[in-house]
Amino acid sequence: MALTSFIEVDPSSHFPIQNLPFGVFKPEPASPPRPGVAIGDYVLDLSAIAAAGLFNGPILSNSDCFHQPNLNKFLALGRPAWKEARATLQKLLSSTEPTLRDNESLKQKSLIPLSKVEMLVPMAIGDYSDFFSSMHHAKNCGTMFRGPQNAIQPNWFHLPIAYHGRASSIVVSGTDIIRPRGQGPPSGNSTPYFGPSLKLDFELEMAAVVGPGNELGKPVDVNEAADHIFGLVLMNDWSARDIQAWEYIPLGPFLGKSFGTTISPWIVTLEALEPFSCDAPKQDPHPLPYLAEKISKNYDIKLEVQIKPAGEKDSSVVTKSNFNHLYWTVTQQLAHHTINGCNLRPGDLLGTGTISGPEPESYGCLLELTWNGQKQLSLNGVTRKFLEDGDEVIITGFSKGNGYNVGFGTCSGKILPPL
Amino acid sequence: MALTSFIEVDPSSHFPIQNLPFGVFKPEPASPPRPGVAIGDYVLDLSAIAAAGLFNGPILSNSDCFHQPNLNKFLALGRPAWKEARATLQKLLSSTEPTLRDNESLKQKSLIPLSKVEMLVPMAIGDYSDFFSSMHHAKNCGTMFRGPQNAIQPNWFHLPIAYHGRASSIVVSGTDIIRPRGQGPPSGNSTPYFGPSLKLDFELEMAAVVGPGNELGKPVDVNEAADHIFGLVLMNDWSARDIQAWEYIPLGPFLGKSFGTTISPWIVTLEALEPFSCDAPKQDPHPLPYLAEKISKNYDIKLEVQIKPAGEKDSSVVTKSNFNHLYWTVTQQLAHHTINGCNLRPGDLLGTGTISGPEPESYGCLLELTWNGQKQLSLNGVTRKFLEDGDEVIITGFSKGNGYNVGFGTCSGKILPPL
Ligand SMILES: [Ca+2]
Ligand SMILES: [Ca+2]
Ligand SMILES: [Mg+2]
Ligand SMILES: [Mg+2]
Ligand code: NI
Repeated sequence: MALTSFIEVDPSSHFPIQNLPFGVFKPEPASPPRPGVAIGDYVLDLSAIAAAGLFNGPILSNSDCFHQPNLNKFLALGRPAWKEARATLQKLLSSTEPTLRDNESLKQKSLIPLSKVEMLVPMAIGDYSDFFSSMHHAKNCGTMFRGPQNAIQPNWFHLPIAYHGRASSIVVSGTDIIRPRGQGPPSGNSTPYFGPSLKLDFELEMAAVVGPGNELGKPVDVNEAADHIFGLVLMNDWSARDIQAWEYIPLGPFLGKSFGTTISPWIVTLEALEPFSCDAPKQDPHPLPYLAEKISKNYDIKLEVQIKPAGEKDSSVVTKSNFNHLYWTVTQQLAHHTINGCNLRPGDLLGTGTISGPEPESYGCLLELTWNGQKQLSLNGVTRKFLEDGDEVIITGFSKGNGYNVGFGTCSGKILPPL
Repeated sequence: MALTSFIEVDPSSHFPIQNLPFGVFKPEPASPPRPGVAIGDYVLDLSAIAAAGLFNGPILSNSDCFHQPNLNKFLALGRPAWKEARATLQKLLSSTEPTLRDNESLKQKSLIPLSKVEMLVPMAIGDYSDFFSSMHHAKNCGTMFRGPQNAIQPNWFHLPIAYHGRASSIVVSGTDIIRPRGQGPPSGNSTPYFGPSLKLDFELEMAAVVGPGNELGKPVDVNEAADHIFGLVLMNDWSARDIQAWEYIPLGPFLGKSFGTTISPWIVTLEALEPFSCDAPKQDPHPLPYLAEKISKNYDIKLEVQIKPAGEKDSSVVTKSNFNHLYWTVTQQLAHHTINGCNLRPGDLLGTGTISGPEPESYGCLLELTWNGQKQLSLNGVTRKFLEDGDEVIITGFSKGNGYNVGFGTCSGKILPPL
């Protein structure tokens, strides 16, 4: 029989007892932030559970990691602590375990309706890097800007390409995004365009949250890289295509990206995703030894982007993709990131890059969906080439189990006009 | 008569009473880090001065900013607090003021020989960005890789190009740098090179330390940008040219840079540098309004790089440059960085990019000095194309006053073989 919780969880919920994603929340606007896990329509306050002495395993019973304003201390503890927390919480929340189920006062204190809490970025992010690991995305962007012959650069099949991103402007789902201003390409010999971005885009991504880091100078072995990854979040790497196009040669994207990046508040652990693991694509050419994994894993996570156009009541699905379209795995990304000795720290974020699939309906950004504005996207009556002020972009993702979902909730943001 | 301190300061010292650069140090290996200023051969412990109640100005008398393990809280207070601290310290250290001069017990507690302390990275660096603001450097790199016709990209004269760097691997002067491993370009149709970098380089740079930040979505006006800059440090942006060359298209430098970046322990304030300010180069084309400053300022800071080759007793000067070679000013860099709404935070670091001058003797990295390894650099008997294991690179910088120097000390690092 499937594991069930004493808390009623709708079969369509993203947060059954099989999931238990971690986040950080404030029960009231003035309360200090604290860690929690989502269960059905509730968040379980882990500081309350810890205060009640219910984390009684060998690692967590003496830790104050759940009395912190973010998850960094818990992330630093590593997989044994994460497994212990998961086992404790699955037991505590199960329908057959009386400890919490029959303790009305503790339930009152520790279970808060999700609708009442404010979710925060769950970790202090020291550094954020963004990869470029979907072959379909790389091919589409390359075809648009360099033609089909040279679509994918020769280095792409040998290493997971990435750039350093901006950590300060990472915000949690629900935060409005102000349309950036900046320079765009000049038309002909004129001066560059300057003003609000005219090609504001989303990018459908996911990102890995780093657990234990590595010392400067000591690379992480690709076969041990999973031990450094706590879990995944949904991510929208908002992008201003005109700013990006003008600035990116030769040092890469900068202001075209750094005005905002949205992540889901919930981190789904690799443990919860394990039942949905699948083979990663066969890689040809064979990767260099430092990137050759004994087991090369992706996850079957269904991803969807909806746009709710300004002034409209309904949102429209604009793309359906899947995490399993990634060519380079997150463990290869992490191993590559450290091969030069670069040190990762708990809470660092590694974006996958835009996750596009092979079919046009699975492209992960408007740049691809409208072929850089050459065609219109129809949204239930209104049309879009790029995002307009007031548009809301909603990313969702989940894995389908037998009678339950393991999901990420949503990652959303609305475009506000420039100040 | 010039301001003098009761502490004897050699005329060649970088740290007279006119300078008073800020850093963070540990008096003993086990002591907690605390802020200090350099004066002659001593560091003045600001936590001791604060504990003695000697910061008695209106802003600092009620602040615990000098009882912190880094400068971030002081940085966040802004220029009025920085000016107050400077005035208090210049008075306290002056030859005519008895308060500290005649207090043997407080002198004992608060003045520690520089030779005895351990210096640390003085601030928690949330984000680090690196610009590309020397025209000579841009031209040399462009000529090498694209030929003299297209040396400088069309965007370069319109905006201060930059990329996001890696904050985690920023280390303080004196930290050894482990030679990175990674992929380099394939020769012909072979697989890529993999192994220790064969083209390890330094980059002579300086960097601005951000004081008060800005809110996400709210750009900083270029004429107010100086209020967001506390001071400058020396910086060596170690670069692996083979790794960089293979990875950087299309998203910019990543592992070719992220294995280590060294900064000087001392931040020289803009106040101390003010007597050495000079006009920045005339910009043609005229910058867009958001980059057009009422006063466009550089500083006359003499910069020098020495290499002490492995096994040799003496170091050789390999380049002499000057901060005033920058085309884009640090205030333009900061204003540009925020024009899209990107938020800066106290302690953020903005590198200038390699500071090359017009003459070959003023080029700021080996890539330029040896023209990508096409010629040898002679170092007093031994020769180099790129750095070898055991080589030490020492950057110094100072401004020459009338009878005194305002200097940065050194920014050094030695290359260790790969692990
Ligand atoms: Ca991206
Ligand atoms: Ca640089
Ligand atoms: Mg972004
Ligand atoms: Mg570097
Ligand atoms: Ni069952």
